[in-house]
Amino acid sequence: MANDKKLVESITSMDVDFAQWYTDVVKKAELVEYSGVRGCTIFRPAGYAIWENIQKELDARFKATGVENVYMPMFIPESLLNKEKDHVEGFAPEVAWVTHGGSEELPERLCVRPTSETLFCDFYSHIIESYRDLPKVYNQWCSVIRWEKTTRPFLRTLEFLWQEGHTAHATAEEAEERTIQMLNLYADFCENVLAIPMIKGRKTDKEKFAGAEATYTIEALMHDGKALQSGTSHNFGDGFAKAFGIQYTDKNNKLQYVHQTSWGMTTRLIGALIMVHGDNSGLVLPPKIAPTQVMIIPIMQKKEGVLEKAAELKEKLGAFRVKVDDSDKSPGWKFSEQEMRGIPLRVEIGPKDIEANQAVIVRRDTREKTVVSLDEIETKIGEILEKMQSDMLERARTHRDTHTYDALTMDEFADTIANKPGFVRAMWCGDQACEDEIKEKTGATSRCMPFEQHSISDTCVCCGKKAKSLVYWGKAY
Amino acid sequence: MANDKKLVESITSMDVDFAQWYTDVVKKAELVEYSGVRGCTIFRPAGYAIWENIQKELDARFKATGVENVYMPMFIPESLLNKEKDHVEGFAPEVAWVTHGGSEELPERLCVRPTSETLFCDFYSHIIESYRDLPKVYNQWCSVIRWEKTTRPFLRTLEFLWQEGHTAHATAEEAEERTIQMLNLYADFCENVLAIPMIKGRKTDKEKFAGAEATYTIEALMHDGKALQSGTSHNFGDGFAKAFGIQYTDKNNKLQYVHQTSWGMTTRLIGALIMVHGDNSGLVLPPKIAPTQVMIIPIMQKKEGVLEKAAELKEKLGAFRVKVDDSDKSPGWKFSEQEMRGIPLRVEIGPKDIEANQAVIVRRDTREKTVVSLDEIETKIGEILEKMQSDMLERARTHRDTHTYDALTMDEFADTIANKPGFVRAMWCGDQACEDEIKEKTGATSRCMPFEQHSISDTCVCCGKKAKSLVYWGKAY
Repeated sequence: MANDKKLVESITSMDVDFAQWYTDVVKKAELVEYSGVRGCTIFRPAGYAIWENIQKELDARFKATGVENVYMPMFIPESLLNKEKDHVEGFAPEVAWVTHGGSEELPERLCVRPTSETLFCDFYSHIIESYRDLPKVYNQWCSVIRWEKTTRPFLRTLEFLWQEGHTAHATAEEAEERTIQMLNLYADFCENVLAIPMIKGRKTDKEKFAGAEATYTIEALMHDGKALQSGTSHNFGDGFAKAFGIQYTDKNNKLQYVHQTSWGMTTRLIGALIMVHGDNSGLVLPPKIAPTQVMIIPIMQKKEGVLEKAAELKEKLGAFRVKVDDSDKSPGWKFSEQEMRGIPLRVEIGPKDIEANQAVIVRRDTREKTVVSLDEIETKIGEILEKMQSDMLERARTHRDTHTYDALTMDEFADTIANKPGFVRAMWCGDQACEDEIKEKTGATSRCMPFEQHSISDTCVCCGKKAKSLVYWGKAY
Repeated sequence: MANDKKLVESITSMDVDFAQWYTDVVKKAELVEYSGVRGCTIFRPAGYAIWENIQKELDARFKATGVENVYMPMFIPESLLNKEKDHVEGFAPEVAWVTHGGSEELPERLCVRPTSETLFCDFYSHIIESYRDLPKVYNQWCSVIRWEKTTRPFLRTLEFLWQEGHTAHATAEEAEERTIQMLNLYADFCENVLAIPMIKGRKTDKEKFAGAEATYTIEALMHDGKALQSGTSHNFGDGFAKAFGIQYTDKNNKLQYVHQTSWGMTTRLIGALIMVHGDNSGLVLPPKIAPTQVMIIPIMQKKEGVLEKAAELKEKLGAFRVKVDDSDKSPGWKFSEQEMRGIPLRVEIGPKDIEANQAVIVRRDTREKTVVSLDEIETKIGEILEKMQSDMLERARTHRDTHTYDALTMDEFADTIANKPGFVRAMWCGDQACEDEIKEKTGATSRCMPFEQHSISDTCVCCGKKAKSLVYWGKAY
């Protein structure tokens, strides 16, 4: 028991120090290991398997909407990065520069891609000629580099994994439609697979992507009341097309510029999973994304027939992602590990259970125990996993809704941010000066102007002038 | 018809200029596009989809043997790369160096990984403590950079995509077993999925991997008689473990060094597919790896009912990867495109076919036509795809076997290499001096010492001393 305790006790309580709790979980659940390169982490099997599942689910959804995958070079020549003015200003300060190949200095520096708009634009300018070549709906799965000063596993790292979709369309309408379509796809995926409810909305001009006409975002609330931008979808209009000369001949034989979009999700989603669902025993993974959904833990496994029965049970549960922990550790230690790793269900089976033709199912999130006959265990596990998935979404939604506050005055705003971690909803006039002032006075940034608008006041919370939009504000990762 | 001809005629005949034919195919089949960075290509949807299928097939086979996927940083600090002497000598001349992050010069240069032995070793030195932590059987899918002077799509590029497996074992026996297991897995995959027969063998010391104790390889013969190294598996012994201090406590509480392996396959497999199976009409893809297996081409598609019937047929063939080409191009143009892209079967269906309740199936490799009733088309297509897959393997095997020559003297060797493109089998004494001399005199390199050894002479083809091994030689990509 001493050892069992050690594993659990070595996690800081989330109420004592949320940041330390987070770090403890990523290490103890063996999601990542720090590497010898500042700000770059190693994805261990337990962490990478979550990303593989995210990729599989998202990729299937992408392809169902006509997305095709491609792969672009990881290097961008400096002159290419410089082609779109806003874009280069946004990214140049945080790129890594390759200056030498082998022992030779390069004639032109290459940056390691922080994002690939410029590469896609250059590519599109070569392959798009006629309206027949449109739309192009391409995506790539890759890693990118951003030279961040402070880093944190999954949330902000020098290198991270992501997908970046880049599309080109004949009309502005079609581009806007695709931008919103992908944002909706992202939100749907997060809610239905990751059990994380999202606020969908538009970023203010201050917060939008470098080079975009409009940036749309999905924002989630973490357990500690901080916001996490979880995915973005950008409408570029024809700005990049003009900078890169991406034109097509329309049906009337006239030259037109294309309209473009881009959209991305990253490994920070794993951080969201941890911070929305985790507890003081470690990670809690929603069944639909968990690499292992059921861990069978044999009790008194040296007794004749126990390991055989556990193996038999695993076979029987082939419809799920199941493992048996038949290592020589104690059951208590195995329980702790299964909990730390966030495996949704554990099934305990020992000599007495076998005699009674039953097993004990324990839910990771509620710790609810169900004794179930082995004859109906398959159906039962299916039901419990489904229930757990929907309960987790509902819990996260309730947490978010009970941590969303309206503010009508700046005092109220500042007081809420200081004392009640969560989203603040407040009206805004649309001026960046007010946005800046709010950030300065409260530390909160605008998260988004939600698609679902309603008015809580006629005046801007900051300047008192006529309000234009309801805005979600918050402290953010 | 003028346009139809243009698409086909614009490919150089492989008999006239094989290198140009290859370049024409990769461009015309829209597998890649050149990028603005020297030696880096863009994988277009048709090219990347082949890689996705390779990944899917290989990854499933890996996991069935207990492999777990991870992801390591793309940067390696210079000091880490320098830790294993042979390894750094092999790779340092061809790495890209990052010297600046944002506007600051880095205290230590970082190389973009050419391969990740050093990162895995550093990682293993931190996470392996006891025999209970072994074996570690990790793999990653990623891109790597090697600063090559001359490049060619898929075959040799500055950046390429690959998987690299890195394992650590308690004993030398287990490491050797894993090395061979993965080589066999590679060969099996190439034969059964890519329809490319492989010679399995061991590399000479001259040709082995920088830092390895032994390198095993699979070698294929291309249509032009040149060899292509298609996958390698290395046994590192405990060399890296000693350089990086990777030790574990065994069951007797004694410190031991681990034994390691690594193994990799790359996007050059796509080059192999092109050069083994392609013909003067373009690419020919084996059914098992083809992103689209069947292209339905409606004939006189403006006639009532034709497009509907084509769509209905697509539904019916849901067990296969099927598309309908209902674009407004002419049927002849569509035939050329389907052939250029190597889609295994085309199904032609027009008003007369519909009236007769039939369709015409055309095989890409033999152009054999089969008229088949729509009632049994699903079964028939399954049979034809299977037959095509095995015919392609047999054709490739026959081509290789009829282009493999034995040489008993240096004159015979030189004459064969000069006049009969293919593999040369010749006996070798084991001295590198002879290997060097053979290369100098004939231009051929040793490909491998095949696992299946037989003697064709008692003496070395070069020096006349006692022969140790039969060796496959050839000109290689």
